[in-house]
Amino acid sequence: MKKLRVGILGATGTVGQRMIQLLERHPWFEVSAVAASDNSAGKNYAQASRWMLEMPIPEPVASMTVQPCQPGLDCDFVLSGLPSSVAEDTELQLAKAGMPVVSNASSHRMKPDVPLLIPEINPDHLDAVELQKKRIGSRGFIVTNPNCSTIGLVFPMAALDRKFKLEAVHVVTMQALSGAGYPGVASLDIIDNVLPAIDLGGEDHKIETEPLKILGRWRNNQFANAPIRISAMTHRVNVRDGHLEAISVQLATKATREDVEGAIRDFTSPIDELGLPSAPRPVMLLESHIQRPQPRLDRDRSQGMAVVVGPVSPCAVLDYKFRVLSHNTIRGAAGAAILNAELMYRKGLIG
Amino acid sequence: MKKLRVGILGATGTVGQRMIQLLERHPWFEVSAVAASDNSAGKNYAQASRWMLEMPIPEPVASMTVQPCQPGLDCDFVLSGLPSSVAEDTELQLAKAGMPVVSNASSHRMKPDVPLLIPEINPDHLDAVELQKKRIGSRGFIVTNPNCSTIGLVFPMAALDRKFKLEAVHVVTMQALSGAGYPGVASLDIIDNVLPAIDLGGEDHKIETEPLKILGRWRNNQFANAPIRISAMTHRVNVRDGHLEAISVQLATKATREDVEGAIRDFTSPIDELGLPSAPRPVMLLESHIQRPQPRLDRDRSQGMAVVVGPVSPCAVLDYKFRVLSHNTIRGAAGAAILNAELMYRKGLIG
Amino acid sequence: MKKLRVGILGATGTVGQRMIQLLERHPWFEVSAVAASDNSAGKNYAQASRWMLEMPIPEPVASMTVQPCQPGLDCDFVLSGLPSSVAEDTELQLAKAGMPVVSNASSHRMKPDVPLLIPEINPDHLDAVELQKKRIGSRGFIVTNPNCSTIGLVFPMAALDRKFKLEAVHVVTMQALSGAGYPGVASLDIIDNVLPAIDLGGEDHKIETEPLKILGRWRNNQFANAPIRISAMTHRVNVRDGHLEAISVQLATKATREDVEGAIRDFTSPIDELGLPSAPRPVMLLESHIQRPQPRLDRDRSQGMAVVVGPVSPCAVLDYKFRVLSHNTIRGAAGAAILNAELMYRKGLIG
Amino acid sequence: MKKLRVGILGATGTVGQRMIQLLERHPWFEVSAVAASDNSAGKNYAQASRWMLEMPIPEPVASMTVQPCQPGLDCDFVLSGLPSSVAEDTELQLAKAGMPVVSNASSHRMKPDVPLLIPEINPDHLDAVELQKKRIGSRGFIVTNPNCSTIGLVFPMAALDRKFKLEAVHVVTMQALSGAGYPGVASLDIIDNVLPAIDLGGEDHKIETEPLKILGRWRNNQFANAPIRISAMTHRVNVRDGHLEAISVQLATKATREDVEGAIRDFTSPIDELGLPSAPRPVMLLESHIQRPQPRLDRDRSQGMAVVVGPVSPCAVLDYKFRVLSHNTIRGAAGAAILNAELMYRKGLIG
Repeated sequence: MKKLRVGILGATGTVGQRMIQLLERHPWFEVSAVAASDNSAGKNYAQASRWMLEMPIPEPVASMTVQPCQPGLDCDFVLSGLPSSVAEDTELQLAKAGMPVVSNASSHRMKPDVPLLIPEINPDHLDAVELQKKRIGSRGFIVTNPNCSTIGLVFPMAALDRKFKLEAVHVVTMQALSGAGYPGVASLDIIDNVLPAIDLGGEDHKIETEPLKILGRWRNNQFANAPIRISAMTHRVNVRDGHLEAISVQLATKATREDVEGAIRDFTSPIDELGLPSAPRPVMLLESHIQRPQPRLDRDRSQGMAVVVGPVSPCAVLDYKFRVLSHNTIRGAAGAAILNAELMYRKGLIG
Repeated sequence: MKKLRVGILGATGTVGQRMIQLLERHPWFEVSAVAASDNSAGKNYAQASRWMLEMPIPEPVASMTVQPCQPGLDCDFVLSGLPSSVAEDTELQLAKAGMPVVSNASSHRMKPDVPLLIPEINPDHLDAVELQKKRIGSRGFIVTNPNCSTIGLVFPMAALDRKFKLEAVHVVTMQALSGAGYPGVASLDIIDNVLPAIDLGGEDHKIETEPLKILGRWRNNQFANAPIRISAMTHRVNVRDGHLEAISVQLATKATREDVEGAIRDFTSPIDELGLPSAPRPVMLLESHIQRPQPRLDRDRSQGMAVVVGPVSPCAVLDYKFRVLSHNTIRGAAGAAILNAELMYRKGLIG
Repeated sequence: MKKLRVGILGATGTVGQRMIQLLERHPWFEVSAVAASDNSAGKNYAQASRWMLEMPIPEPVASMTVQPCQPGLDCDFVLSGLPSSVAEDTELQLAKAGMPVVSNASSHRMKPDVPLLIPEINPDHLDAVELQKKRIGSRGFIVTNPNCSTIGLVFPMAALDRKFKLEAVHVVTMQALSGAGYPGVASLDIIDNVLPAIDLGGEDHKIETEPLKILGRWRNNQFANAPIRISAMTHRVNVRDGHLEAISVQLATKATREDVEGAIRDFTSPIDELGLPSAPRPVMLLESHIQRPQPRLDRDRSQGMAVVVGPVSPCAVLDYKFRVLSHNTIRGAAGAAILNAELMYRKGLIG
Repeated sequence: MKKLRVGILGATGTVGQRMIQLLERHPWFEVSAVAASDNSAGKNYAQASRWMLEMPIPEPVASMTVQPCQPGLDCDFVLSGLPSSVAEDTELQLAKAGMPVVSNASSHRMKPDVPLLIPEINPDHLDAVELQKKRIGSRGFIVTNPNCSTIGLVFPMAALDRKFKLEAVHVVTMQALSGAGYPGVASLDIIDNVLPAIDLGGEDHKIETEPLKILGRWRNNQFANAPIRISAMTHRVNVRDGHLEAISVQLATKATREDVEGAIRDFTSPIDELGLPSAPRPVMLLESHIQRPQPRLDRDRSQGMAVVVGPVSPCAVLDYKFRVLSHNTIRGAAGAAILNAELMYRKGLIG
């Protein structure tokens, strides 16, 4: 099989590096181009990137020349790890030039014809791409994955909403440093400390809105949000990777603790039979010990693509409470984008 | 004025050390005896304690001989920083021998005639001491302060319950290492990590129950709990001192965001006029920046005795949400016990 | 090929866990017994161990029953991760009962007929085993590996001593938390701090003496120390794994900076051709960037078995200076013991 | 007494903030102007600075308007916490305009007529100012303090050189995050890590050269370096404040361990009788426990102005070894500059 050729936008950043690492031995895709900001463009990738990961830079990539982020990249589609500040224009420009863009940036997530895709949850949202192509007037298009904190939250939400209908969700996050990119959080700010209200509350807003689109429906050429109330309070803690979230939920129908744990444990996905290389089986792991999940112990499970859920307890205010952990730069960013591309490939949208 | 003589139980532990430090230049009290476990007893305090604080051991204490924790200590009352495992019997034994015991341990907190005292909130609960003395059959008695996480939570609860009646409170804690005592949390457990469910959930239980007694009433010789539902999820984070809590509340009566902030800002206490040396004025500080309070920046405000509250926002699930921070070994333990003793002295219960 | 059966002493500790993990898919050895202290004995391993590693407990081991550390274990040889306090008697007892003991403990390291073995450096020291067996009066015997800080230091020492004769070595260590075992270092001691003089200077002493035996000769039935002066100052830093050491050396013969780097880069070992499964090729990796090695980026290279050396610079006091990093629980402990066992197997001493 | 009016250059940075904090209740000086980079100039100080310290911004300063760093500041002298990149030109410009500049920057430290001043060690170096004024052609002039790592090192060097003549010094540093300014070190770089070769070795160079000037003599209108060989290896560790250094020394004359400790303990200074407000008495504290000094426990001693030295041990390579700790932003930067200004005031150079 001839592999699809992938261009990485924002290739020198935290998410771009993870994309390159995760694609190292990918059975379907191979990196053919790396692009980054103007002051990296023209340099050798090994020199331009300040490589942060424990494993070395995969060889063909290390010696590639970094390109500018603009049309003309030699690839079949792009994965974008660009920061939101530049993603909006750049990604649209590439899509207009005919390129499929699989993006981790927030810029286009909430657009009315852009899928906010999690393959295990809302694969049918890809249908919106047809409309989007018409708007853009191009073969190219944009598909996005959610914020790194949304991901961990939305999996148990999907499982519970499907079984019991969710009414309300209260979530408090304890998020890892790598979620802020590099250089990101100053060490003087986080040593012996916790930082509340990530992005001055912008992160809270993403968590309160993105799941509504993801769990909503694409019907009559528009997205209808799921009718769930979400309240989020975010925090940065002194952890390298792995976002931990403390979640309480209110259900529309009565359910026992066992019912709730069963819904999480037995969650299946429409894509389970597609054999996507990066899809973990199962996608949610239910832990039985009350002191799990923990970031360091659980973030790398199933190669960082699983969402680990702790035991469910009754909540004195809402109905039930539990914790969830996901690897923010793998399941929550680079791995999410790659899995999206895998689904898109299976569905014939790229390649 | 002749100072009251204080014995410190558990003098070598984290809380005992703080008690000794906070009493160094106390206008009313002076340390006259230090007591600890059997393997410390008989040693010089400077040798027996593994002093953890930045300031040196106050001089008269450094050269005291550590006593065993039993009746016969040369003092007017004792402050107890004992761990719960030994506090129950030891404190009762001292009380029975005629000694007033001001305790930070959880062992007696929920006893039906033991005050769970916060001077600014429920000073009248001291009335229970009379009944307790009869039960014990002694001039001695026990007064307790709450768990270190309860303290931060219960101040805004008191303010809001007084003004609007509280129906429900949801709290997620991010607690400091010193709350676990010494040696406490292993460094290998907390580096690059967060630990959920402190004390296997025992901490959650204290937070869910202690405020109900504190905000309840002492009437007809018994405590009546406040009718509030509390749900708590606790976590240990890599911070030395200062417990941060993310709180959502549901009120019985309508209130604007300004009303809620006003109730916190304008909170006054029946003891405000008593001139207690350790009482901060005001006891609650309302911050206006959404990224405050933070443990490192706010834990030492008002000598670690203030409770710092962040700005109030609407909550999509309950009514309002905000954060609170308090220094867990000062306001939440040693300072709380000393303030209790100050009130007791003013009310003629000791001295 | 039928695998040799290995018993793990101290199986629940930090080093024991690493041994079990590293043996999971070992081509020659398999764990057949796990032994630990009396309060773990009789329990299921998964319950008895507080498993600290990111990967799950290898399956056959997870359900084994923990045995007491005494003769009668069902295995061909034992790997010992026991703490020194109990290792001395226990290991000797097993050796006397006929068991080969491959130990990570310090208890027997400096005994006059016990090899302090690093396969790449002094494989011929295994000759001492014959004499030892006679002393013990058994088929059993003890072979040890060095202290976790000695390992990183002694590799460049071996390379330089071989080429230029070493006269003096000055080393300052910055050691990881896992070197202290579990629970080990209290989090309150290490947060925002560095702890000097590990083991009250006992660690310094090991580093100053062990390399002399390792680089010395076994001749006429005794070890003759290498004539090198070593000065060590040790520190614990807030790092999970990976000991970093800042080293200055004085050479007996003139050498350029290129000579010194060449001696390190070109270091070869008598065992290079033996195909030992855990032996890295090459064992020393020379980095060219002055800000390398770093614990987090370099500790896992060659599966944690390589020793990573930074660039060499002139030293204004001695001749040259450089840094070295090694993974303290893999290359410096569990992996070292396993590699020793591999060499012993190849030489017919076990199996 | 009317206080001298001080302008702070680089007022919003880590060092500038410390200067402002340390001057809050200074008996001789008061802040009359704050200056910073162009994008801060014009703003209110409370808004322009990202205040990092635990105590609030001193009141008169909080509401000052930040000025640009140029001549015309309303003050009697300036303290400069500017980064070196801009200090060279800016400070010279102010000196030429007639302003005394007391600088923490490295730009002018090694100039042949600029004192590199530590009041307790080389107060006579202020004599160079006369020559400097002539060169500049102004009443204004520049006096500097050393690098934050030099300070801790040079105190015991001064004591030992005075008594025994020093031949060689080997130093390995473990430096705190605040030494890199703000934002400084990225949290992703330092969590679970140590960073070698600060400033790509530039820091090593400062430590190897600055003490030679400080301990040298001003004679015949020029500085003559002390003839000592110094070798330095620097590291950044995950500590907020407090540089720890592991030092070995070689003496020209024989001395016992007691002699060496005595020289440190009994160190006196020509300025001891001047009553400078920020001068600690004694300036060096000798600790007897081998596990001291430690950054967190010892950095704040004598208000952060003391240099804490650990017990002295024989060194197998040089003669003796010991550790030293100093607070890098107080004794090593802001406090050093203020103490310099105090001496200059006493000597009639300012005011």
